[in-house]
Amino acid sequence: MSGSLVIAGLGPGAEALVTPQVTAALARATDIVGYIPYVARVAPRDGLTLHASDNRVELDRSRHALEMAAAGRHVVVVSSGDPGVFAMAAAVFEAVESGPPAWRDLQIEVLPGITAMLAAAARVGAPLGHDFCAINLSDNLKPWALIEKRLRLAAEADFAMAFYNPRSKARPDGFARVLEILNEACADTRPMIFARAVSTPEEAIRIVSLPEARPEMADMRTIVLLGNSTTRLITRDGAPIVYTPRSVPMDAAPE
Amino acid sequence: MSGSLVIAGLGPGAEALVTPQVTAALARATDIVGYIPYVARVAPRDGLTLHASDNRVELDRSRHALEMAAAGRHVVVVSSGDPGVFAMAAAVFEAVESGPPAWRDLQIEVLPGITAMLAAAARVGAPLGHDFCAINLSDNLKPWALIEKRLRLAAEADFAMAFYNPRSKARPDGFARVLEILNEACADTRPMIFARAVSTPEEAIRIVSLPEARPEMADMRTIVLLGNSTTRLITRDGAPIVYTPRSVPMDAAPE
Repeated sequence: MSGSLVIAGLGPGAEALVTPQVTAALARATDIVGYIPYVARVAPRDGLTLHASDNRVELDRSRHALEMAAAGRHVVVVSSGDPGVFAMAAAVFEAVESGPPAWRDLQIEVLPGITAMLAAAARVGAPLGHDFCAINLSDNLKPWALIEKRLRLAAEADFAMAFYNPRSKARPDGFARVLEILNEACADTRPMIFARAVSTPEEAIRIVSLPEARPEMADMRTIVLLGNSTTRLITRDGAPIVYTPRSVPMDAAPE
Repeated sequence: MSGSLVIAGLGPGAEALVTPQVTAALARATDIVGYIPYVARVAPRDGLTLHASDNRVELDRSRHALEMAAAGRHVVVVSSGDPGVFAMAAAVFEAVESGPPAWRDLQIEVLPGITAMLAAAARVGAPLGHDFCAINLSDNLKPWALIEKRLRLAAEADFAMAFYNPRSKARPDGFARVLEILNEACADTRPMIFARAVSTPEEAIRIVSLPEARPEMADMRTIVLLGNSTTRLITRDGAPIVYTPRSVPMDAAPE
């Protein structure tokens, strides 16, 4: 009995952003495992069992998926965006490493998806068009001091930045502190982009300067992007374009 | 006469990784513009003109695409991977900003794609499963000192890292210096991944420890990934799995 486990990225929301590779994997699956709203994106059909679970149970969910694959099922674990970016792939491999040795020999495949920061960047231009970093602002699984340290070093490196999980009901205050640190470290008016529910009917995008940014502009469905010190805003009728040039002047001397 | 310009990401190579949104845009186009090997990925058909150009002419290519869109054509500029990650989107917007004011009012849309680092990460596990950065190692458009500065700060921040354009015939020595700096700054045996031509028939993936990495393991078709200080290697029959855990111990005190 030879089962399989696929960890698939559904992209940010629109069907038109799901890769054919992922669509084919969903069509072959016997079982879909994932967080409730992501499993809800998979159409029910005969022979397919949907296993939806709540947030913050990623390891239990991973073990369940691995057990089913070990029992011969064809399991797809679904993530929003890309499964390797602050999503289910790392959780599944944590479960593999700490689980029964036989789990290591399962056929496991990760299928990439369009991650939220790239979908959001595309909607406003090319704000991540030069070197950049991606930081998860949730301190559920790491010390807050490490987030602060990374923000300061990312500003010093002059990376454009993408922030996942900026704010939740359980963590209403952290993002206010993030904005304080970024304003202090960047000390300019570079553009910040709040992109909510990108590619869905509820999509809402707001572009402000960093000093104008307010904590309540973000929630858990928002991805936040910040330009680097050279990021440009092209004004025009309608929404402006934000892009980060490919070049840094050759006489720009790092300190 | 109302033309349009779409900047589309073709993903890393496989057809199964091209989004339906991009496939639809290619089907509507009158003109395809891009670097020779990327234009070669678009099937010729009646009514479609292919405009392939050589490397390093990104601004000329962008102006050509904008001129055609302004003249009423439906132009798609194709990039490998995602157009917003070290690819054509920033070049097009540079051309818009410095070009005739009428170009600002053109209908311009960026369609995201699967970028190489995420396709490569998926092939080995989840090496970018925690905070990470993406750095273009070409010094064609930025001072070398800035690359060195960013490498050191990224190591200090303990980001996992993805390196685009690690090495070319015109820049044979830079990547050797990158490996020296990373070994000095990281001072451990974390995994480094060399992923060449991901998702194509020529795909070749090699996983080594950072001290084992050699410059000649990379060329311009290679994306290089480096774990952070916590990245794990799961050994098994066949290729190992590389993943970066989602958690950092809560007592890990940043300096």
